Amino acid sequence: MDKKFFDYIIHGGDYNPDQWINTPEIWDEDMRLMNLANVNSATVGIFAWSMLEPEEGVYNFEWLDEILDKLHANGKDVILATPSGARPAWLAQKYPEVLRVNENGIRNEYGVRHNHCLTSPVYREKVRKINTLLAERYKNHPAVKMWHISNEYCGECHCELCQEAFRDWLKVHYESLDELNEKWWNGFWSHKMTDWSQINSPKDRGENHVVAMKLAWRRFVSDSHISFYENEIAPLREITPDIPITTNFMRMYDGIDYQDFAKHLDLISWDNYPAWDKGENADEALEAAFVHDTFRSMKDGQPFFLMESTPSIVNWHDVNKIPKPMRQAQSSIQAVAHGADSVQYFQWRKSRGGHEKFHGAVVDHCGHENTRVFREVSKLGADLQKLGGAVGKGYNGKVAIVYDWQNKWAVDVFCGYNNTKRNYLAECLKWYRPFYERGIAVDIIPMDGDFAKYDLVIAPFLYMLKDGTIDRIEGYVRNGGKFVGTYLMGIVDKDDLCYLGGFPAGKLKDVFGLEVEEPDSLPEGMTNTVSCNGKNYTVVDICDILHTTSAQTLGSYKADFYKDTPAVTVNSYGKGKAYYAAFANGGDFMTDFIRDIIADLDLGAPAFEIPDGVSVRKRGDLTFILNFADEERTVTLDKEYTNLITDEKITEITLPTCGYAVVE
Amino acid sequence: MDKKFFDYIIHGGDYNPDQWINTPEIWDEDMRLMNLANVNSATVGIFAWSMLEPEEGVYNFEWLDEILDKLHANGKDVILATPSGARPAWLAQKYPEVLRVNENGIRNEYGVRHNHCLTSPVYREKVRKINTLLAERYKNHPAVKMWHISNEYCGECHCELCQEAFRDWLKVHYESLDELNEKWWNGFWSHKMTDWSQINSPKDRGENHVVAMKLAWRRFVSDSHISFYENEIAPLREITPDIPITTNFMRMYDGIDYQDFAKHLDLISWDNYPAWDKGENADEALEAAFVHDTFRSMKDGQPFFLMESTPSIVNWHDVNKIPKPMRQAQSSIQAVAHGADSVQYFQWRKSRGGHEKFHGAVVDHCGHENTRVFREVSKLGADLQKLGGAVGKGYNGKVAIVYDWQNKWAVDVFCGYNNTKRNYLAECLKWYRPFYERGIAVDIIPMDGDFAKYDLVIAPFLYMLKDGTIDRIEGYVRNGGKFVGTYLMGIVDKDDLCYLGGFPAGKLKDVFGLEVEEPDSLPEGMTNTVSCNGKNYTVVDICDILHTTSAQTLGSYKADFYKDTPAVTVNSYGKGKAYYAAFANGGDFMTDFIRDIIADLDLGAPAFEIPDGVSVRKRGDLTFILNFADEERTVTLDKEYTNLITDEKITEITLPTCGYAVVE
Amino acid sequence: MDKKFFDYIIHGGDYNPDQWINTPEIWDEDMRLMNLANVNSATVGIFAWSMLEPEEGVYNFEWLDEILDKLHANGKDVILATPSGARPAWLAQKYPEVLRVNENGIRNEYGVRHNHCLTSPVYREKVRKINTLLAERYKNHPAVKMWHISNEYCGECHCELCQEAFRDWLKVHYESLDELNEKWWNGFWSHKMTDWSQINSPKDRGENHVVAMKLAWRRFVSDSHISFYENEIAPLREITPDIPITTNFMRMYDGIDYQDFAKHLDLISWDNYPAWDKGENADEALEAAFVHDTFRSMKDGQPFFLMESTPSIVNWHDVNKIPKPMRQAQSSIQAVAHGADSVQYFQWRKSRGGHEKFHGAVVDHCGHENTRVFREVSKLGADLQKLGGAVGKGYNGKVAIVYDWQNKWAVDVFCGYNNTKRNYLAECLKWYRPFYERGIAVDIIPMDGDFAKYDLVIAPFLYMLKDGTIDRIEGYVRNGGKFVGTYLMGIVDKDDLCYLGGFPAGKLKDVFGLEVEEPDSLPEGMTNTVSCNGKNYTVVDICDILHTTSAQTLGSYKADFYKDTPAVTVNSYGKGKAYYAAFANGGDFMTDFIRDIIADLDLGAPAFEIPDGVSVRKRGDLTFILNFADEERTVTLDKEYTNLITDEKITEITLPTCGYAVVE
Repeated sequence: MDKKFFDYIIHGGDYNPDQWINTPEIWDEDMRLMNLANVNSATVGIFAWSMLEPEEGVYNFEWLDEILDKLHANGKDVILATPSGARPAWLAQKYPEVLRVNENGIRNEYGVRHNHCLTSPVYREKVRKINTLLAERYKNHPAVKMWHISNEYCGECHCELCQEAFRDWLKVHYESLDELNEKWWNGFWSHKMTDWSQINSPKDRGENHVVAMKLAWRRFVSDSHISFYENEIAPLREITPDIPITTNFMRMYDGIDYQDFAKHLDLISWDNYPAWDKGENADEALEAAFVHDTFRSMKDGQPFFLMESTPSIVNWHDVNKIPKPMRQAQSSIQAVAHGADSVQYFQWRKSRGGHEKFHGAVVDHCGHENTRVFREVSKLGADLQKLGGAVGKGYNGKVAIVYDWQNKWAVDVFCGYNNTKRNYLAECLKWYRPFYERGIAVDIIPMDGDFAKYDLVIAPFLYMLKDGTIDRIEGYVRNGGKFVGTYLMGIVDKDDLCYLGGFPAGKLKDVFGLEVEEPDSLPEGMTNTVSCNGKNYTVVDICDILHTTSAQTLGSYKADFYKDTPAVTVNSYGKGKAYYAAFANGGDFMTDFIRDIIADLDLGAPAFEIPDGVSVRKRGDLTFILNFADEERTVTLDKEYTNLITDEKITEITLPTCGYAVVE
Repeated sequence: MDKKFFDYIIHGGDYNPDQWINTPEIWDEDMRLMNLANVNSATVGIFAWSMLEPEEGVYNFEWLDEILDKLHANGKDVILATPSGARPAWLAQKYPEVLRVNENGIRNEYGVRHNHCLTSPVYREKVRKINTLLAERYKNHPAVKMWHISNEYCGECHCELCQEAFRDWLKVHYESLDELNEKWWNGFWSHKMTDWSQINSPKDRGENHVVAMKLAWRRFVSDSHISFYENEIAPLREITPDIPITTNFMRMYDGIDYQDFAKHLDLISWDNYPAWDKGENADEALEAAFVHDTFRSMKDGQPFFLMESTPSIVNWHDVNKIPKPMRQAQSSIQAVAHGADSVQYFQWRKSRGGHEKFHGAVVDHCGHENTRVFREVSKLGADLQKLGGAVGKGYNGKVAIVYDWQNKWAVDVFCGYNNTKRNYLAECLKWYRPFYERGIAVDIIPMDGDFAKYDLVIAPFLYMLKDGTIDRIEGYVRNGGKFVGTYLMGIVDKDDLCYLGGFPAGKLKDVFGLEVEEPDSLPEGMTNTVSCNGKNYTVVDICDILHTTSAQTLGSYKADFYKDTPAVTVNSYGKGKAYYAAFANGGDFMTDFIRDIIADLDLGAPAFEIPDGVSVRKRGDLTFILNFADEERTVTLDKEYTNLITDEKITEITLPTCGYAVVE
Repeated sequence: MDKKFFDYIIHGGDYNPDQWINTPEIWDEDMRLMNLANVNSATVGIFAWSMLEPEEGVYNFEWLDEILDKLHANGKDVILATPSGARPAWLAQKYPEVLRVNENGIRNEYGVRHNHCLTSPVYREKVRKINTLLAERYKNHPAVKMWHISNEYCGECHCELCQEAFRDWLKVHYESLDELNEKWWNGFWSHKMTDWSQINSPKDRGENHVVAMKLAWRRFVSDSHISFYENEIAPLREITPDIPITTNFMRMYDGIDYQDFAKHLDLISWDNYPAWDKGENADEALEAAFVHDTFRSMKDGQPFFLMESTPSIVNWHDVNKIPKPMRQAQSSIQAVAHGADSVQYFQWRKSRGGHEKFHGAVVDHCGHENTRVFREVSKLGADLQKLGGAVGKGYNGKVAIVYDWQNKWAVDVFCGYNNTKRNYLAECLKWYRPFYERGIAVDIIPMDGDFAKYDLVIAPFLYMLKDGTIDRIEGYVRNGGKFVGTYLMGIVDKDDLCYLGGFPAGKLKDVFGLEVEEPDSLPEGMTNTVSCNGKNYTVVDICDILHTTSAQTLGSYKADFYKDTPAVTVNSYGKGKAYYAAFANGGDFMTDFIRDIIADLDLGAPAFEIPDGVSVRKRGDLTFILNFADEERTVTLDKEYTNLITDEKITEITLPTCGYAVVE
């Protein structure tokens, strides 16, 4: 759980000196400014391929040598990137197969980034070659401390090579075409395949209604990314076995199963771009917290890196309001609270041209340090130096929420019930809130995570069940676990094939002591009401109509033809309890319901009261207190603490909006 | 007008035992459940091609033999489908020409359904072959009572074969390129064609502004469907001359001229999926009634089949709210009231996988009969058995509303006046409502229907006139008919060529006693007012500015520069009367105006008062009373009737919402 | 500045007798009607190619001879069009290269208009040939007075010929690939080009994030149009050197740099289709005035032609409300007030078919003169005959607003700050309004226009600076000019490369006496307030946070973290003054701010009070007074004038809505 890559919190970010190669005086100025900014690290080499290999087989590493030496001389750690995220124009021109083909069968032209076929043997070979050269050249460079593989992997390709690879993947994952036909229910609409070659990627102008096939394609694409990555890192593992490897994830991006990819990384790193100060900051903070916890949970609580963030604004939000002063610093401290061992920026210095020239950076186009943003970065850098106690400290919660990448895919793609309001993440956030607001750590795990570690597992909208999930839920509850399920649970298996014999699937009916007869869907503006423990809750979007067998009814519907039928139940099963919340709700129900469920559990909540809008999180011996409310907040502590930021002893602290404290 | 295919109302639906071929115990269970559900029929073979011909030339009819025998042994009638709606993967792989080409000239890949070129000789030959084999094998099977051709024909193809076929079609429909150039007004934008081969299908990346060409293409596509169908049925007509043939239409789908296609069918059948209980049920019922009447009118009042409906929900509406209990039964009884001799479902049993696995079915995934839906289907089945008196009874109304498929095309495609608010169907529904609410039967006919049969003909928004329409309106009015026209009437001929010499076209100016100078269009939020018979009506969207010649002004505009000019007129012409309503209105005008017009006509309205939200319709000796209001309604009858559902004598009946009665 | 092509105001329009070649009686009727309509001109030959050259090399000019003779015999001037705007079908069929290729690399099919590759040698040759023949044949025809080249040039092509031409263009505009790589900042995302052939047009499936490349492509496309045009007119210049040449522009269409194209025309002509009487007519009039002024300014105040307008409605607005009677006449008089020497219509007679058959025309489908529209055209024709005094009179204002076509491109395409609310034209209109409402003439000029001519130059949102702009602004202010800049000024050079060293670029910081640190963006619904001269103004969308150096602060922000920092400044620089308005505002700020700035300037405002909704403009000795308010307005004049329309002496005039007067 604990894992330490550095002895201090890394503070730095993406650095592209290659864009300024014609103005070397700027390189020296960068060193001066990094020192002023309390920055101790730089990530270099991202998108540098055309600088490293200007012509095929002609290499130019000298500039990189120089900058690494310069950084080292200035005491900066280097995170070295592989350049596969974008390719030189000559490469695409000579080997057109490296470019992606779209659903229309038309090959992309050279351009943008992430435009490479994941299958192309040529591209894989070229990537491996340049990575080998990088590793060989810098394996002993004292500044190089970590590998940053490519950049924000994403996308997909529909070329013939990928079609063939997809078919090969299918042959591995299905014993026979007969099995595939049965699993994909290909008898429907006469789709029985008689030869593997009849299968192509799903697309608008081809097959686009077979959910099982779409899920298979998403699994294949995810696996293709991982296999592409494995090809990238093979020479690094061989040549630099001691340098840890990561790649930067993009929040909850669902084109890759990050929970699967995580197994292949030495540490998780991710890029965090919240929309601060455009609306409800407390909600924005909650969602960021959820994502931090998701990534922390991916490697059993191990610390992760905040690989990218902006010191001011991004350029690609619709409207890029400047966050309040110190907001981004607060956002960075939040990351550390949730397990980050780094605060890194995209980008050190704004580029003069290109798509991201208006993306915030530590150094602006003006080129000097006399800016608000620079001063705040510098201040944050100083604060981070005081938080060495957190470095390497991992942690797990006693509660888990199941957010499963593949269930997300399945939820998004099926057609039925409520097709307009189906937001898996939003549902999970509603169940996360009651814990977040109490300062209780929650792990976010896939459905094949280890339930036994937790006192309570909540699995919102668990529509699809991977193999073994039924047994694992059953075993967990039988052995004393508390499990919460919600509407549309256990409907299909991993191939989107409906379970027969009543829902939820198989013996889950016994575990929950109920059977669902019909899910009802509520159009915008139509609601029902559930009464539970004397309070009324509004039903929106969707709800199950069910019959209890052994379950006890805790709440019932108050209207429609299913008036007075059960909506909230609990069933004692073995040594545990299985709760069922059959309806979607705006969030007030979750708050009350969770309060009741956890009344008898010790989940590690702080011993002091947490005001509205304030977030509290313990990490190791440190307690982080962050005020995301729009006004100041006073927190009365349960005992005397030391505020590490100010080095004061305190029993109470008043934080302005954007304020943070770390106490010990 | 009367026509009987069975001695009882058919109750059944789409049945796909081929999807369950690996679990034969389910076949027997289906028989048991069909008996419990009071189902007397099954439609089999839809989308079964890959089961019937798993490899080219290798056939497997045994499973079908077995299921037909089983159904017959259980006393079920079989409606046997041809499988052309979807094709085996091997067929598409071996003969790529059978797949459609999109507007970009890119051929579709194998997938979904309805993805076949309508012109492809190979596909037509393959379809004919499999249909021949089906007919030969089952021509004497005692269970087989009707042919269900393909399934919901739709779509179009832009391949070279279709381009050539389109040109051939044009050569038949235009005497020469000169004529085509003149009719399409190709002098505009220099579009004179000098060779037929210069013409392609309309498309975004080609010709997309020539309305006449778009109309020609729609006619060609419609004719292609009919010709495809004729190819399908040729072997059936030869081998099974006594088995009636139908194909299932999709509500008001306008990709095919159903009024033309109808001539080729022995009976109409259609698929009805109203959006019950999501908003205004009375409006939903009115629109369903209109559609029923449209299909009843297509074959001179002859009964039709309700080939598909859902016993609960569909899966493809945006939000699939469960209708109130017995709503779907009421909806089925409404179909019978309007002329249906069947109530059939898609689908008997939910499929485990595939796109429609969450579409309602009689038998749910749980597999047993203990569901609300199953019980309601069973109850409805029992009720239908009491309505044998309706079977085979056709009827016509004394009023006709002109809803013409080709006028729909023309209205949708022209550019001018109000381009944002142009809903031909909605206009027709406004004129239908006053009759519907009085229980008066209305026929819905094309503009080349036989006006002479009717006391009153209403032709809303009759923008385009097919050949002969002017003469037929003139003759009808001259001979004593009452005819109502509205704004933008008689503007173009069938090639969208404007009539010269003033609107409406030609001698319609005499018939109506007026000339239209300028149509005005009103943006959202701008209105005018018409005063008529002392009441004010709101003008929306569009209105004609006109001059009367011989017509009498009944109502006038109250604002804008055409204040006090005529908006509603009547003209005595020959023995008849021609009314003109020059403006669009929300509906209150139609209600009042129709009340006045029909005051002196006997249109067969029921002799009792009809409460708000209740629909009454006479069919033969039976009178159907349906409560679509959201609360109960009491109907006081004019005399004693027998309620066939309950076998009680009644002079008054109180119906809950969703309630229905059939009295005699 | 003055320039006279005719001795009277031209009154006529597009005339397509070729569409009526089979009904020659209509030609004679047209002559009769033109005389009745007080029309003195006709524009013929637009889109007539398939009539002129029905087969390749087979010509038919006889019909054109006849119509030109007929027009001449009836005393009508002819504006003769070249037919390149649409091509015969045979030409596209024989030479497919003449058709455009879209971004997907798929060639368009024959259809619509403007569907030709601008590069195609074949098409250029064919156009030149037909133009040569036209010029030869009609060079001495007494009716032919002006060339109308093609029609509304627009669009672009992505074929291989255009790719090659684009690369050739780049080679001319960049000294080397190295320079291009540096200017386009191709180090970003590894985009260094090593061979010109690696560059293609920007497109979704290729490069779409390099702003500099997009700007280069837009410049190339614009230049391609001009070069296409130069090819068209070469034979005309040679054969008919004395006949002036124009082409009709489309309002503010930004696919071509009209300010550049203007240099190649003898006179500007443009097509004006305001949306009268659908909303705020005064705003609609203001925008039309701005566009008139833009075109008048393009050739140093020289009169232009109103080449197209509608006498009633168009057919392609969403909803084509009929404007109030005489509104279109008023709109025509407004054109003359702003410098038009013609009032011309699309179209003389409505076509029977085709896309524009419902577009308004002088002669409607009824074919006779007894229509409201015909009478109004005739009345306007008579009025125009009284305004001979205006003919040939050009004029310039003493104030210029910089509206620069290429800055429009740059503003539209960059990614950053506020990506949803960025409307360059709307910003310019806000600064135009205070002058317009006072009857002060304003020139609308590109950033490379001659500032020295003006007492005041306003450059809203001058984000991109063409070469030399910094020096020209600096020199203008230093020499005594007043210059107003606004937020996001001077950010990038013409290749969208950010200026380094602080904004606005280079010595503009000295000129304005300030430095901008951060632009802030405000989402919909979030605002700030600026207090200036004791009044409060709402800040919307975007605002700069800045520091003054030498500038004086006139107004400050009232909220957010930059509360009390400068928002409005003025700096004395040399003999002039540089104003900076750092924020976007709805318009009230501009009104007040301009009032203050111009207090000491004599800008030629009329000597009488102008009521709200009334527009006044002087042209030569004439003063035009137009009432765009929805009610009548009375204008009290400063002395006695002669109303040329009524030939009355007046000191006061009351105009109804749509009313106009021209006084001397």
